[in-house]
Amino acid sequence: TKGGLRVSTTDGQFETRLRGRLMIDAADYDGAPQIADGTNIRRARLAWSGRIFSDWIYKLDYDFTDGGELKDSYIGYTGFSQARLRMGLMEIPLGLQYRSSSANSQLIERSLLGAFGGDRYIGMMADTKRQHWSATAGIFGDDANEQRERNDEGWGVGARVTMAPINHNNMVLHFGLATFYRHLNDQATLRFDEQPEARVAGFEIVDTGIIPGARTYTRSGVEWAAVGNRWSAQAEYMVTDVRRTVGQDVGFSGGHIQSGFFLTDDSLNYENGDFGSPQPNHHVGDGGVGAWELVARYSTLDLTDEDIIGGEIDSLTFGLNWYPVPMLRFSANYINVLNVDGGPSSGQEPRIFLVRSQWAF
Amino acid sequence: TKGGLRVSTTDGQFETRLRGRLMIDAADYDGAPQIADGTNIRRARLAWSGRIFSDWIYKLDYDFTDGGELKDSYIGYTGFSQARLRMGLMEIPLGLQYRSSSANSQLIERSLLGAFGGDRYIGMMADTKRQHWSATAGIFGDDANEQRERNDEGWGVGARVTMAPINHNNMVLHFGLATFYRHLNDQATLRFDEQPEARVAGFEIVDTGIIPGARTYTRSGVEWAAVGNRWSAQAEYMVTDVRRTVGQDVGFSGGHIQSGFFLTDDSLNYENGDFGSPQPNHHVGDGGVGAWELVARYSTLDLTDEDIIGGEIDSLTFGLNWYPVPMLRFSANYINVLNVDGGPSSGQEPRIFLVRSQWAF
Amino acid sequence: TKGGLRVSTTDGQFETRLRGRLMIDAADYDGAPQIADGTNIRRARLAWSGRIFSDWIYKLDYDFTDGGELKDSYIGYTGFSQARLRMGLMEIPLGLQYRSSSANSQLIERSLLGAFGGDRYIGMMADTKRQHWSATAGIFGDDANEQRERNDEGWGVGARVTMAPINHNNMVLHFGLATFYRHLNDQATLRFDEQPEARVAGFEIVDTGIIPGARTYTRSGVEWAAVGNRWSAQAEYMVTDVRRTVGQDVGFSGGHIQSGFFLTDDSLNYENGDFGSPQPNHHVGDGGVGAWELVARYSTLDLTDEDIIGGEIDSLTFGLNWYPVPMLRFSANYINVLNVDGGPSSGQEPRIFLVRSQWAF
Repeated sequence: TKGGLRVSTTDGQFETRLRGRLMIDAADYDGAPQIADGTNIRRARLAWSGRIFSDWIYKLDYDFTDGGELKDSYIGYTGFSQARLRMGLMEIPLGLQYRSSSANSQLIERSLLGAFGGDRYIGMMADTKRQHWSATAGIFGDDANEQRERNDEGWGVGARVTMAPINHNNMVLHFGLATFYRHLNDQATLRFDEQPEARVAGFEIVDTGIIPGARTYTRSGVEWAAVGNRWSAQAEYMVTDVRRTVGQDVGFSGGHIQSGFFLTDDSLNYENGDFGSPQPNHHVGDGGVGAWELVARYSTLDLTDEDIIGGEIDSLTFGLNWYPVPMLRFSANYINVLNVDGGPSSGQEPRIFLVRSQWAF
Repeated sequence: TKGGLRVSTTDGQFETRLRGRLMIDAADYDGAPQIADGTNIRRARLAWSGRIFSDWIYKLDYDFTDGGELKDSYIGYTGFSQARLRMGLMEIPLGLQYRSSSANSQLIERSLLGAFGGDRYIGMMADTKRQHWSATAGIFGDDANEQRERNDEGWGVGARVTMAPINHNNMVLHFGLATFYRHLNDQATLRFDEQPEARVAGFEIVDTGIIPGARTYTRSGVEWAAVGNRWSAQAEYMVTDVRRTVGQDVGFSGGHIQSGFFLTDDSLNYENGDFGSPQPNHHVGDGGVGAWELVARYSTLDLTDEDIIGGEIDSLTFGLNWYPVPMLRFSANYINVLNVDGGPSSGQEPRIFLVRSQWAF
Repeated sequence: TKGGLRVSTTDGQFETRLRGRLMIDAADYDGAPQIADGTNIRRARLAWSGRIFSDWIYKLDYDFTDGGELKDSYIGYTGFSQARLRMGLMEIPLGLQYRSSSANSQLIERSLLGAFGGDRYIGMMADTKRQHWSATAGIFGDDANEQRERNDEGWGVGARVTMAPINHNNMVLHFGLATFYRHLNDQATLRFDEQPEARVAGFEIVDTGIIPGARTYTRSGVEWAAVGNRWSAQAEYMVTDVRRTVGQDVGFSGGHIQSGFFLTDDSLNYENGDFGSPQPNHHVGDGGVGAWELVARYSTLDLTDEDIIGGEIDSLTFGLNWYPVPMLRFSANYINVLNVDGGPSSGQEPRIFLVRSQWAF
């Protein structure tokens, strides 16, 4: 009962939690092309989760923005030694940035690699988290909104493993590998696109359009991260191979490297395979100034191959985060699109000033 | 504060509850016609209810699937001796299967009689539940989404009475009668259709299409149920008479008989007019295996009469339920459509393997 | 933990609240034009709010009717002496009726002045409430659903000040002034319309249609209210000036005066700038009859100017409110449209009988 609500029975067998997050964005886009300045409620979520009879967990998570969308919603069993088995709607196990909550990304939006990540499907997933390694594997059907009368739904299978040879007081060295194979529904279409690390205007700066004849695709990624007290760094690289029934098979790729430094005596919060929310050591209102962090990131994404001309983009982003108290965050980002080569916005390099206010528990 | 959340004041005058349910389905359809295999979030509900000043109750229930839909949401008064008066959006009082929660049906989906049931309207309803009988009556306007500028909304009126000459420790004999009359909005259309006891693909196997000139219709049903310790049985028969302004009046009918048997030392939970959630006597994680139940059902539905050729269908379903602990349930059903005569899928008899994982409190 | 749910830590630094409201309407429309009689769930809301680390507040409010819509959702800071700063989606500071919750309006719907009020935008707002005055000012972008790729979003700025030279035990004298300037998105359209103080049928009795070339508009209003024990009165007048790039600039105006009288020993609940929920002194179920109030209102609205013929309307409404216990309310209104001159329903004066049942905490 701090932020949100947590109620437990005294024997610890039962627990109920209400959690949520609200993210309020405003953006000023400069340069070509003309993109709409404005504001946006990026996420407005309510999540209800709990534990019953010690070994069973449940969750129902909903995002109220844009008409509403069901997020991670499942039933799970935690009675195995350290492992967890879940069934329901879940995000696929792919990529350090997507495995960490959107509330905890060091820059306001995830990198251009977002083009390849973050989908949720109905399926089963097993995972385990230890101090020095983690592993996740799952098999999935289609997404929650897919309901077809005649054509079988798509399906997918994937896994992610991470290692952390160093993981003790604010010192972390993390490596990860993940791959996800997906077979599309016979009538489904595949398309990759991405906004320029700001999602206020809804403008896609690179876009493959619908890829004709795409039937299956495989995304594979490598991750690296390091934390040394106030300093942190992470990098990811991902390739996507698309098999087609018409035209040549195509491949796309992207990556980013980012680094952060706390001006205050704080550190990123590594949670055995992903990053949790920073906990400022000195609270505003308690004689402190909260936690202040500077971040920089270089991202690149190439959505052009063979007959598919989605465009290639490089981008540099600088950010400042202020966490006055735990669960609150105010961020400002400056996004400088360095180069766009090919695709719908070829040669147009906007600069964006983006701010976000958020609460999240 | 077990599953969900329940908070009361010590004098019992005030109470707040959070409840919900999540149902995760997967289905494999075999035989003709080709129907889409796949997965589905069948229900994802959050319900908030409570009691204030001893005598007043309230509820707000929402299903987050398929864009979201308001479920039973009302204000009520319980200060009368044993009776209850409610106003708001409520399901009509018709049929034992629909009066029992979807979380507690013995097979994954209700029977083919679903074609005639489960609508919710805005209105007033009075009910009373005693050990040996129950009665419900209500008058209703239109549904929550209906908002017309010019044409008056539809309305309906109905009642249900049940008797339980036997109702003590795990021994139940139940009879019921119900009827519901509905007058359609001048511009509304009437249509009956039904899926083959699985709702993953959204495929309607019998379907009257829009019935031209339908202005009013009356649904009437008889119900019977019996419980003897581990064993249970229930049967329902329903007829629907449609008055039309063009063509002949038409009538449709259907029914089912089903029986269940617990392999473990458990019993169905009769709640004076409907069935509640089984409470396994021996929990998994506590030395037990939970409750295991075998169920079989024969259903029939005839949507063909005069010029309306919706089709006639017979179906046999077998099911296995596992309740490891209260509030959790895992079910597998095998649905064998025996015969489809007339209508859009005449002569096509699919077989379906359907599984569900659910939490519900 | 009375209605809704409120949980605090013992040091008062953290608090979580669940609140909501459900309003169930039924209406009978008589006279010309033919308007649809029927029922409606007017509002079905769940609001989650709280306080963390003493000085920070948050809120997430959602209306589940009509597909769902995000309401006031923000993050705020209350660490300043008596002032409050908030960021997020909020209703603009304009008009006594709109500043008071819809659950507390003396008649079922707000007056015809609703044509000019109640919009919510994403922005920042500062306010302060004292015993004898209040002040609010804010700057806003566009609404939560607005997401444009190319055209900059609209923006607005406004403020409201109120004075209450008398404000002690059930004696209130209140004055207020407010103005709000809004600059439309380049592609946005402006339209004013209003239903006849009942919102069951969705029928707009006056309607400017889209105003060609409207680019900015300013709404300004004056308010007055007085409470003397059982008796209360309030009046508002508002003008809206629209600047256009084609045709003449146009102006619209409207106002209302209303008065209420409690038959029981109760009083309106003034909350330093707006009206809160009446608290009946003698509860039903506790030997009392609750609080009973009679209300009358005259409203007028003129949406005709230059080439824009939206219509002019006068309306008289009588109401009876019954609050059996706090948080519950049952109301009946008789709305007599006196005159409609011009616009889509010129010369047609319906009479409406409207009832509402509501819970709200």
